Amino acid sequence: MTAAADGRVARRSLSLAFDGSALWLLDQTRLPDVEEWVEASGAESAAAHIRALKVRGAPLIGVAAGLSLACVARSGAPRAAFEAGAATLRAARPTAVNLMGAVDRVIGAAARAGDAWREEAVREAVVLFDEDVALCDRIAAHGAALISDGEGVLTHCNTGGLATAGVGTAFGALRRAWEGGTRLHVYAGETRPLLQGARLTAWELARLGVPHTLVTDSMAGALMGAGKVHRVLVGADRVARNGDFANKIGTYAVAVLAHHHRIPFHVVAPSTSFDPTCASGAGIPIEERDPAEVRGASGAFGRVRWAPEGTPTWNPAFDVTPAELVTSWITERGVLGRGDLGGG
Amino acid sequence: MTAAADGRVARRSLSLAFDGSALWLLDQTRLPDVEEWVEASGAESAAAHIRALKVRGAPLIGVAAGLSLACVARSGAPRAAFEAGAATLRAARPTAVNLMGAVDRVIGAAARAGDAWREEAVREAVVLFDEDVALCDRIAAHGAALISDGEGVLTHCNTGGLATAGVGTAFGALRRAWEGGTRLHVYAGETRPLLQGARLTAWELARLGVPHTLVTDSMAGALMGAGKVHRVLVGADRVARNGDFANKIGTYAVAVLAHHHRIPFHVVAPSTSFDPTCASGAGIPIEERDPAEVRGASGAFGRVRWAPEGTPTWNPAFDVTPAELVTSWITERGVLGRGDLGGG
Repeated sequence: MTAAADGRVARRSLSLAFDGSALWLLDQTRLPDVEEWVEASGAESAAAHIRALKVRGAPLIGVAAGLSLACVARSGAPRAAFEAGAATLRAARPTAVNLMGAVDRVIGAAARAGDAWREEAVREAVVLFDEDVALCDRIAAHGAALISDGEGVLTHCNTGGLATAGVGTAFGALRRAWEGGTRLHVYAGETRPLLQGARLTAWELARLGVPHTLVTDSMAGALMGAGKVHRVLVGADRVARNGDFANKIGTYAVAVLAHHHRIPFHVVAPSTSFDPTCASGAGIPIEERDPAEVRGASGAFGRVRWAPEGTPTWNPAFDVTPAELVTSWITERGVLGRGDLGGG
Repeated sequence: MTAAADGRVARRSLSLAFDGSALWLLDQTRLPDVEEWVEASGAESAAAHIRALKVRGAPLIGVAAGLSLACVARSGAPRAAFEAGAATLRAARPTAVNLMGAVDRVIGAAARAGDAWREEAVREAVVLFDEDVALCDRIAAHGAALISDGEGVLTHCNTGGLATAGVGTAFGALRRAWEGGTRLHVYAGETRPLLQGARLTAWELARLGVPHTLVTDSMAGALMGAGKVHRVLVGADRVARNGDFANKIGTYAVAVLAHHHRIPFHVVAPSTSFDPTCASGAGIPIEERDPAEVRGASGAFGRVRWAPEGTPTWNPAFDVTPAELVTSWITERGVLGRGDLGGG
């Protein structure tokens, strides 16, 4: 096996490029102003990019990790280096379930393959990519079918091609509706404190030519009050058995606002985000992050602090929205109502 | 009359210092990191500071304009220069009602005074200051009485000593409650896009030693869901006859969230903010501001843009909250319920 590109297994997405032996990632920390690709063909470099948030989004991180392991297998490195690479990747983000699952699958496929372990590692990583693309396509098709011509749709955070290997979840539904000829207008909430909506979703929307408007999170209520929002689509980090779900901080407020304005509110996520071990939202732990994120903003655009130094903050990364506020859960299996869920 | 300081008419507030012949303003654009005072003893300099937002908050702008005219009168300048100064100040912010009212009163007092016009201009400007201080004190006393020991209180934007010559309105109520021995915890919403909560309210709270926590606007819902907020106090830019009111963008969302969580929501404003010519919130025009404010943030802390250049935005400066979401309106006259209002 050579290190040359292998067209049969080459895969490319908005933010990931694999030529059969080398992997490149779009550095999301440089967006939206700079589109720079960084190589991630080894487990060490991929793990470093994951730690540095150059690649983000649970599904995308999993696929990137799998493909970086495929690169190691393809490079002619000894089996011990391949196994060590898996350990390095697992340690890059210990709480990322997709990352663990992807590494386990590539390692498992290699373990079952005997002498053909290198080819099997590559094949399994490519399957991971293809599965994510197909999953997004199915989810997006179900979501897109809900959107009517002329709708204004509010979304929060980023759930598109910068979070998955495919078209995304909530973002994918918007994209597929637009590509299918549905005239819609997307309102992107900026998503403080880390600004994924302003930095990433606005960039993806502009790139695709989808009509859109960026608003601060504080404007979501006034936007609904002004009659501009007909539907809300958001992603989910974890969905409990009863339908409660955790997602980026600010999602819960948007759900309450949508409920007050009788605006349909949809959660868009693969069925793998549904956690059967979790009875309700109360069982979902919420990570609290660095106060510096609330005191200002930082990224490739610069680093500023506008609050007094040392100001006490509260900075949960996620919040939990109860099932009562959700109109439907959109997965690859279709559009689920509360009656379709397993229940608490 | 000399230009020397006159102790009898000297006045000082958190952000304004008048010694009888010279006026200094705390430059709010430099806060919270730098406390720099700028001279505003002439109409030209005061108007420039108003235009540059070094002084902000409708009541404070009015008092500052009045005192700067007093400085002109006190300087020995000819009457024509005094009248020209009034015109310069009026033009600094043509839509600011308090500014117009303050200038009119100082000019009117001088006009009625004959030869003693210089003394009368100073006297009237000092009365403006004292009236604002007394007004804040009465409002704050009514508001403070509502707050119980141990409460978490959420506020939005800045309504304190950086917006008035006194203790402020919503902020004044929190301050007076704290000074009166009520243990409370203030949650300050950062107030995107201009960040008055993060920059100014957090600074005032820290200065007074009031326990507080800064949150992004997107966290208000989760904060209420977590049971940390027992009351919301906000200011108002204009209150309609039926109780609908306009205030900083984001206020409406906080009101809806409070309503959903059955948390008392109070509007704190002087009765002069009640507009008898305005039947309901529908009659309140909303200024739309520069898209650059939503695409990033700027101030003395720096200037950053995180959204793609040219991203379309919606940037209303204010939103309107309907009376149904308001528990009570707190003015210098007391705590009003819906039945106490004039009605639509």
